[in-house]
Amino acid sequence: MTERVVLAYSGGLDTSVAIGWIAEETSAEVVAVAVDVGQGGEGLGGAAGVPHSTRGAQHAPSRHRPKAQVARLRGPSSGTPRARTGHREHRTGLPRHPLVIRKRALACGAVEAEVADARDEFADGYCLPAIKANALYMDRYPLVSALSRPAIVKHLVAAARKHGATIVAHGCTGKGNDQVRFEAGIVALAPDLRCVVPVRDYAMTRDKAIAFCEARRLPIATTKKSPYSIDQNVFGRAVETGFLEDIWNAPTEDIYEYTRNPAIPREADEVVITFEAGAPVALDGRPVTVLQAIKQLNERAGAQGIGRIDMVEDRLVGIKSREVYEAPGAIALITAHQELENVTVERELARYKRQVEQRWGELVYDGQWFSPLKRALDGFIDEANGHVTGDIRMTLHGGRAVVTGRRSQSSLYDFDLATYDTGDTFDQAAAKGFIDLYSLSSKIAARRDLA
Amino acid sequence: MTERVVLAYSGGLDTSVAIGWIAEETSAEVVAVAVDVGQGGEGLGGAAGVPHSTRGAQHAPSRHRPKAQVARLRGPSSGTPRARTGHREHRTGLPRHPLVIRKRALACGAVEAEVADARDEFADGYCLPAIKANALYMDRYPLVSALSRPAIVKHLVAAARKHGATIVAHGCTGKGNDQVRFEAGIVALAPDLRCVVPVRDYAMTRDKAIAFCEARRLPIATTKKSPYSIDQNVFGRAVETGFLEDIWNAPTEDIYEYTRNPAIPREADEVVITFEAGAPVALDGRPVTVLQAIKQLNERAGAQGIGRIDMVEDRLVGIKSREVYEAPGAIALITAHQELENVTVERELARYKRQVEQRWGELVYDGQWFSPLKRALDGFIDEANGHVTGDIRMTLHGGRAVVTGRRSQSSLYDFDLATYDTGDTFDQAAAKGFIDLYSLSSKIAARRDLA
Amino acid sequence: MTERVVLAYSGGLDTSVAIGWIAEETSAEVVAVAVDVGQGGEGLGGAAGVPHSTRGAQHAPSRHRPKAQVARLRGPSSGTPRARTGHREHRTGLPRHPLVIRKRALACGAVEAEVADARDEFADGYCLPAIKANALYMDRYPLVSALSRPAIVKHLVAAARKHGATIVAHGCTGKGNDQVRFEAGIVALAPDLRCVVPVRDYAMTRDKAIAFCEARRLPIATTKKSPYSIDQNVFGRAVETGFLEDIWNAPTEDIYEYTRNPAIPREADEVVITFEAGAPVALDGRPVTVLQAIKQLNERAGAQGIGRIDMVEDRLVGIKSREVYEAPGAIALITAHQELENVTVERELARYKRQVEQRWGELVYDGQWFSPLKRALDGFIDEANGHVTGDIRMTLHGGRAVVTGRRSQSSLYDFDLATYDTGDTFDQAAAKGFIDLYSLSSKIAARRDLA
Amino acid sequence: MTERVVLAYSGGLDTSVAIGWIAEETSAEVVAVAVDVGQGGEGLGGAAGVPHSTRGAQHAPSRHRPKAQVARLRGPSSGTPRARTGHREHRTGLPRHPLVIRKRALACGAVEAEVADARDEFADGYCLPAIKANALYMDRYPLVSALSRPAIVKHLVAAARKHGATIVAHGCTGKGNDQVRFEAGIVALAPDLRCVVPVRDYAMTRDKAIAFCEARRLPIATTKKSPYSIDQNVFGRAVETGFLEDIWNAPTEDIYEYTRNPAIPREADEVVITFEAGAPVALDGRPVTVLQAIKQLNERAGAQGIGRIDMVEDRLVGIKSREVYEAPGAIALITAHQELENVTVERELARYKRQVEQRWGELVYDGQWFSPLKRALDGFIDEANGHVTGDIRMTLHGGRAVVTGRRSQSSLYDFDLATYDTGDTFDQAAAKGFIDLYSLSSKIAARRDLA
Repeated sequence: MTERVVLAYSGGLDTSVAIGWIAEETSAEVVAVAVDVGQGGEGLGGAAGVPHSTRGAQHAPSRHRPKAQVARLRGPSSGTPRARTGHREHRTGLPRHPLVIRKRALACGAVEAEVADARDEFADGYCLPAIKANALYMDRYPLVSALSRPAIVKHLVAAARKHGATIVAHGCTGKGNDQVRFEAGIVALAPDLRCVVPVRDYAMTRDKAIAFCEARRLPIATTKKSPYSIDQNVFGRAVETGFLEDIWNAPTEDIYEYTRNPAIPREADEVVITFEAGAPVALDGRPVTVLQAIKQLNERAGAQGIGRIDMVEDRLVGIKSREVYEAPGAIALITAHQELENVTVERELARYKRQVEQRWGELVYDGQWFSPLKRALDGFIDEANGHVTGDIRMTLHGGRAVVTGRRSQSSLYDFDLATYDTGDTFDQAAAKGFIDLYSLSSKIAARRDLA
Repeated sequence: MTERVVLAYSGGLDTSVAIGWIAEETSAEVVAVAVDVGQGGEGLGGAAGVPHSTRGAQHAPSRHRPKAQVARLRGPSSGTPRARTGHREHRTGLPRHPLVIRKRALACGAVEAEVADARDEFADGYCLPAIKANALYMDRYPLVSALSRPAIVKHLVAAARKHGATIVAHGCTGKGNDQVRFEAGIVALAPDLRCVVPVRDYAMTRDKAIAFCEARRLPIATTKKSPYSIDQNVFGRAVETGFLEDIWNAPTEDIYEYTRNPAIPREADEVVITFEAGAPVALDGRPVTVLQAIKQLNERAGAQGIGRIDMVEDRLVGIKSREVYEAPGAIALITAHQELENVTVERELARYKRQVEQRWGELVYDGQWFSPLKRALDGFIDEANGHVTGDIRMTLHGGRAVVTGRRSQSSLYDFDLATYDTGDTFDQAAAKGFIDLYSLSSKIAARRDLA
Repeated sequence: MTERVVLAYSGGLDTSVAIGWIAEETSAEVVAVAVDVGQGGEGLGGAAGVPHSTRGAQHAPSRHRPKAQVARLRGPSSGTPRARTGHREHRTGLPRHPLVIRKRALACGAVEAEVADARDEFADGYCLPAIKANALYMDRYPLVSALSRPAIVKHLVAAARKHGATIVAHGCTGKGNDQVRFEAGIVALAPDLRCVVPVRDYAMTRDKAIAFCEARRLPIATTKKSPYSIDQNVFGRAVETGFLEDIWNAPTEDIYEYTRNPAIPREADEVVITFEAGAPVALDGRPVTVLQAIKQLNERAGAQGIGRIDMVEDRLVGIKSREVYEAPGAIALITAHQELENVTVERELARYKRQVEQRWGELVYDGQWFSPLKRALDGFIDEANGHVTGDIRMTLHGGRAVVTGRRSQSSLYDFDLATYDTGDTFDQAAAKGFIDLYSLSSKIAARRDLA
Repeated sequence: MTERVVLAYSGGLDTSVAIGWIAEETSAEVVAVAVDVGQGGEGLGGAAGVPHSTRGAQHAPSRHRPKAQVARLRGPSSGTPRARTGHREHRTGLPRHPLVIRKRALACGAVEAEVADARDEFADGYCLPAIKANALYMDRYPLVSALSRPAIVKHLVAAARKHGATIVAHGCTGKGNDQVRFEAGIVALAPDLRCVVPVRDYAMTRDKAIAFCEARRLPIATTKKSPYSIDQNVFGRAVETGFLEDIWNAPTEDIYEYTRNPAIPREADEVVITFEAGAPVALDGRPVTVLQAIKQLNERAGAQGIGRIDMVEDRLVGIKSREVYEAPGAIALITAHQELENVTVERELARYKRQVEQRWGELVYDGQWFSPLKRALDGFIDEANGHVTGDIRMTLHGGRAVVTGRRSQSSLYDFDLATYDTGDTFDQAAAKGFIDLYSLSSKIAARRDLA
């Protein structure tokens, strides 16, 4: 029986060529699996809607707000196709329609092709834990690509089981983080599966891919290489390009798509985000799924230029790289969530949680989504989010998401203790005893150290 | 021989009254000590200059840039007097001239009065370590008041030794953090000294203080209570006031003095900050002391509305409080310093340093500046800053300090490894082996967990 | 209506006197509540059995091993009464029979008296989490007293609710940890209750207590003070006494009761401990409850001199104290549990768990059993214990509990990967790539640092 | 010009064969470098002394106790040759005399051969930091082999510079930790050098090595493989062997050489260890170098069966392995050092240091001795050891090193605060206020959580 390979398929040039390339290298049959986590983009001006078949919709969203009305946009989108190929990880966005993707994969030689709409699953199962963890790698980056890999991996492994595949393939290069995230995820879910990587393991360079494509007359446009290497999903967008590799260069305005220029004067927007146990459940009082919360805030915060990140970052593979991100919804949600935690989480738990958050972010960045430690940290984080319920009012403006009000039935802010008005209930007499014992150990040390 | 008390003196109503109040309660002589860490404020429009005698200038600033030209403003200031009394901790700003302060203290009954200009000392010895630690309590607050207390304590203890005092007094209330910072600091430097606190220990309420003042005809204006309770120094400004105690209320524009409204359109400012071993040593190529760096960035970043913070905060004494801060220079410097660390600090050191930073910030917030643990963390932080040398270019605009470029001879960013251009030196073949072993322990766990 | 006070009652002199003392100080009625967590002791030679009524037995033990046969010893004990009064915390062991305790409390003026057998509850709800956490404060002390306080507090609060009390009282002094553990526990379970402490708050010294006792002719022997201050329960025993306050003095043999002299030659004992999800469920193949596991190992490990601890310890109240403990069962169980974790817990989870364990131990030592952070850490620890199932064989001898074998169906030890015999499955070729990328970030740093 | 390779040479079969093997594979000249860190062993009964030339003695020992008399044993040793080859890492002990080693290396084809006595350097520069860090990987293993690798690496790199080598080679296999420690160390000291590993990279199996040896008639006995794979140095000894790969099997007595059977009754030994700033400087009042302290305690604690460790361990390369160690001196010294820290280090510093110690141990185990993070942690640890000065009295007996007394001029134990005798200086009244504020945040949380 012929061996089978499940390939993470994007519909772009690289993975389309990879179908045949892998088949030749391994003599195996290739099953193409496209998993939509929003690669079609979250650009402003109505481009966000990507048509989806209903096949992949096995995931029931909005478990955090069962009453919420799910108004998913499904109509054909008028979004302009965007430059999204590049050489960072040789990934490209999904073509707009699932049927197009399937057809293209089969035309390129796949024996099977599947397209799954995993956007709600991605939002509920991957973005939401990141929000609860206030996950910002290096205090900045909301893990956009790092969150999508395990979501895709889950579908790849399921497809491998379904189609009897023994190998999984992806289109990443050998110097980025994403290869690790794919492969560490795959062995954690299916330790018996093997991974192959055409670019890294079979020397499938861009030039060779174009030559292969033209030689086989594959139905893919072999356009000149875009200057931008992009990865995007509903939680954000990453951009790499040659001139940014000089870290003294500032980003130019044309690389952004999820966010408008924050420097341009415009009217401020105000939003009230409602959380229940750490999950966003309503915007301005209207129930939303997590996916809707992210998408609507992508639009609203993006319109205000919020969520641009430009940083030098430590990759798992040991090098520093320059990265530019846009994540308007993610940044707005995490900012709001942090402040609601400030109001509802007890001090010592809050202090410890910061350490847990840092480790959680590092683990996820490092591709350890399915690791035992990540699971145990999730237990901590979920427990800590139990009371993170209430409203945060934010002003979105000029590139900043600024909290201006908090309101919670779970609040630990006690006006009567905190107020400086007469009638406060704080017992100041206790303070002297507190300070005496609180500082006793360092006082004893001082006696010695000063002797 | 009569016992002596050293009182942390501000020149305002509360500590002026406290001179006599303490004398009556303890039958001791009171020595008033005013330590200027910039309580006169860093307001925009030329108000920042506070006249200083040269008496306190024993501290040699700018050890980090010996060549820098120190151009300290010493002329009389045209700054408008600001509302700075309040009842948060019953502290007020220093009157403008040291002679005025001394005279007032003596007129209120002090047997001695001293005024020290500790601004350079504060910047070099307290703000700079905070910059090196990227110190942001709860990821937000640059520890403005928390940093000033130990700086003041050092002078109080020195004065106690000089004047043979056995007691130190301060004007804080019994429900804030500052009482702990004062007293924990004092016992750590002088475990034999005792602390008394008129407001907390001798029931010196605001109303009684006013009555005392009027009864003794002390030369202090007993104006109606300002609605604002303010603490400020060169590193920032804290505001509390009644309506902010409702945490759903947004701050109003009139509470800010170090920062202009970021929402008002204006021209962006661009600055290049040069660091040496973690310390800011030049702005736009012109050498500066740390104090000058903070003050100039207070002005420039403040003019762009940068550094406003509005948060619910966990106090050491166990309650949550609502705090509004402005710290334009601090936020600009820490933002720049963080990114220069991203470029120059090795990954594992950088990851661990984040934990150290968090603990450092908690310790300083909690009044443990002089504790053995703080000292040992400083050793770590200084070592980690050894290579944090280079230039950061930032755009200051619309409330945001945005890094746009980095340049460093100590950079660990390696273009040849990072670039996706042809000719990169990264060995992709190593990645496969790396991933295999990197993910092996969780792969083995998966085999079991999935069995 | 008269106010009521619930008093943590031991049956000894101090708390017997406290009944009347509190009544006089507060004009309240006193309800005496004795909670048996094994204060009767775990001495060798059959002394361990303490008769218990069945009244307090509302707790269903052994939920971790429902099939286990519960063979609780209930017969009258021949145990010699032991010196257990002292002035450390003025606590004494329970008299042997619940009826005696009740009668004595009523005779001393209590309006109600209750005795609860909380030993299974203590073992399952407090000792077991400590075993799962490998909890050793300062890497040494298995938290014996610290674990018992919250167990007792729970009963005190329940009694306060049942009897309509508004105050809770305990017999600790003002310089130990236990006062904090009682009171922090009480406010965490019942923030409306108030605590009073006769020794600390009402100046009830030992001498005054004896005088009070004699004046009222209370039916308590006012024997001369024992030189030993002891706290003991099923998990261990703490001893303090005057000559140990000189930290250069070695403990003498007569202070120990749970353990025999390890230096005396005797036959070794071998035991196989079976764990399920971190809980001990069988000894040498015979099912046990957690309480039975602790008690049987107290006897067997105690007979071999295991579990003696002599240390200088950091108290929560800021001082260092010299403590001597015996905890044979606890040390044997934790040692076994640690090694089973070595076999069954994935590396990164295991590494992180060590930090969590340390913080857990500090929290519990510091009286924060019922705190939100402790709860969240429990979530982590339970998750990490999910696969800690298997057998540990130990030799108990000469003061040492030495693991000699491990066996587990959840083992992550993979013979085929680990063996150096021919036929191993480890892919050595992967190592080179692993090392290259693993050491890349410090290699890049080295290039700079050595330049 | 011919390329040169520096080979870490042991004088045993594997590295002797490696000289020619590498020469053939690389066409380079091989320089053999033997670095003595005590591979000759620390066995009981006078075997410890290994003759050394004075050539390598460039290191000045005992900088921590300049007055100490250094009485190094240099006479010929009567030690029986021990089985020390094995296949764990194919390393063998050094032949006894440096001249023999040199001669053998040259006879096997080396163009140069060097032997360095690095034992004092190893003790002072590697074992001492481990003692200060109380370094126990997984709370058990004192990092014996992990400490020796960077000590050896330093000499290899120096030799590479001296002899103009561009490559470094070692004899480890591809599945252990030591290959990582060698190679990560080498790139950290000399990022331009390349590593080759005959066993891993050039398929030099044991059988092929024997065949090579016999074919070339190398002057090495090709004895049958010993059942034991051993690595040893002055800080301890590691044993692996086939039957221990079944983790249910107990170790047998014959595998131990540094320790006698602890179960055999014998007289106890008592020792007083004096530390200065964390370093052992005297035993029973007699000045010692660090090396002497370790060696003398190896003998004395080893005679009492102290320091045997049997554990399942997490290797850096992702697998669990069964390891048996003996480290009598290391365990005695660390135990004493820990307790002296308990007496002399302030609580919060001590608590944080435990985390730092854990990370330090992991880093060193993981081969990151020369990494930036390790350096920064050293800064913390040295600062924390500043006051770790004083005497620890221990009883060595029956496999246990038990602290029985502590004495220090830097003690933070305050008898007057700690004593329960009358006349103590602790202010119990402060406790109530302390507890009120200490437990306030969890009390407020309780109010909410119980609502």
